[in-house]
Amino acid sequence: MLEMKPIAVFDSGVGGLTVVSALRRVLPHESIVYLGDTARVPYGGKSRETIERYSEEIASMLVGEGAKVVVVACNSASALGLPRLRETLTVPVEGVIEPGVAAALTATTSGHVAVIGTKATIGSGAYERSLRAVRPDVRVTSMACPLLVPLIEEGLLDDPVTDAVLERYLAPLGQTDVDTLVLGCTHYPLLAPAIARAVGPSIRLVDSAANCAEAVGRLLSERGLEAPATAAGSLSLGFTDPPDRFLEVAGQALGLDTAAVSVRAVPPLGQ
Amino acid sequence: MLEMKPIAVFDSGVGGLTVVSALRRVLPHESIVYLGDTARVPYGGKSRETIERYSEEIASMLVGEGAKVVVVACNSASALGLPRLRETLTVPVEGVIEPGVAAALTATTSGHVAVIGTKATIGSGAYERSLRAVRPDVRVTSMACPLLVPLIEEGLLDDPVTDAVLERYLAPLGQTDVDTLVLGCTHYPLLAPAIARAVGPSIRLVDSAANCAEAVGRLLSERGLEAPATAAGSLSLGFTDPPDRFLEVAGQALGLDTAAVSVRAVPPLGQ
Repeated sequence: MLEMKPIAVFDSGVGGLTVVSALRRVLPHESIVYLGDTARVPYGGKSRETIERYSEEIASMLVGEGAKVVVVACNSASALGLPRLRETLTVPVEGVIEPGVAAALTATTSGHVAVIGTKATIGSGAYERSLRAVRPDVRVTSMACPLLVPLIEEGLLDDPVTDAVLERYLAPLGQTDVDTLVLGCTHYPLLAPAIARAVGPSIRLVDSAANCAEAVGRLLSERGLEAPATAAGSLSLGFTDPPDRFLEVAGQALGLDTAAVSVRAVPPLGQ
Repeated sequence: MLEMKPIAVFDSGVGGLTVVSALRRVLPHESIVYLGDTARVPYGGKSRETIERYSEEIASMLVGEGAKVVVVACNSASALGLPRLRETLTVPVEGVIEPGVAAALTATTSGHVAVIGTKATIGSGAYERSLRAVRPDVRVTSMACPLLVPLIEEGLLDDPVTDAVLERYLAPLGQTDVDTLVLGCTHYPLLAPAIARAVGPSIRLVDSAANCAEAVGRLLSERGLEAPATAAGSLSLGFTDPPDRFLEVAGQALGLDTAAVSVRAVPPLGQ
């Protein structure tokens, strides 16, 4: 059975486009509807309760509009909002954490994995819990890196200031036997080359956006929800507030056409 | 006539505490109610329409609770939301832009003023317009410095990375005859020493938080709204989402007691 309904992808802002880019690459026949909650960005730093409410409002709207699956392309919302979404939504939900965790556990040989992300993602302990749930003896070093998103959004993807900040955050990993670093924020794939330079060749990067896209592909296939191979695929971009120059930066770096975007309101639940 | 009602101060987050700190210094007998909209922070980067709505929701709530004056301790909201508040509220409203503008025009001898702030504040052109409204021949150099708020919120108030970022933003001013720099974001007074180092002694800094507090003092006096000189003064801190470690950083740097805070919801307008 083939399914023409779209995949809905949401994020607190523009960063989730790294997931969209990976989805377009892995699933070129799918139609994708993206919603970035730029009016309330960032989620990182906000409470579980607030992030749950924002996630539920957006996902309910997208499912009401016919989405066949909801992709939470935001680590903060995956960490804090996803369990509630799985309880309340009538369609499958995929986040960015579980796929990254699976990839990290496949990649590591030392059994020592590092995770970087926003304060909310790291503070939630979601990666650590998910890693241990699959492999109880894994060692995890988690670090909040709150300056990386602003640097990325400034377009400083290849810049000495960014390198200095990365050095500050990541140098301590050199004194450990960490061999795998999970990029636990959807913005971070845009900084992958700089992060790779900072940690050196002995640490492998796990890109949670790419791993999420592959998990969505498996999910569609298992449930018989794939679009027909003859479908052209499409991308529709919506934001709750007009996005700034970072949309251009991200679109360019990711090879996405960001010329046409709509600005949409998210109704409160129960309305 | 003396007035025991509180001064209401609101900001998108924690940065407005620089204005609270200045108010406590200038008006020690006043009771101050602060609301930081941490559930929707930051406003910088959001649209005029969204910022107007957020500002109106918060200000209406605070006036409904008895505030005698509303202080918009947020440059983005002062730039984009204040005109609407002055139309709709029944109490006087003071922002941070006009007081900073007046101080800058008093300070400059070259007639060339620089302003730094968030993307929204700078993009709104509000400082430039306000400066020119008072002195049409003033020359204005405006610069958005979006990395400064994250650096301040990381507590990097005295740090080589912050110095490198400031150098990047502010070095061009050295090639001009700018003699006055307006700190057009309520976070920036926390970085005043580092900014002063970066621009050198030939450029005078205008702290919009301090100038706002003085303007509020004049406003209370003109309208006969001052608290009695026998009043003890008080400070009550509320946030729409539990604030993070930056509240501690700011409280410490500003000498404010931030031990007791309440978390409050802001109802949508018309409810």
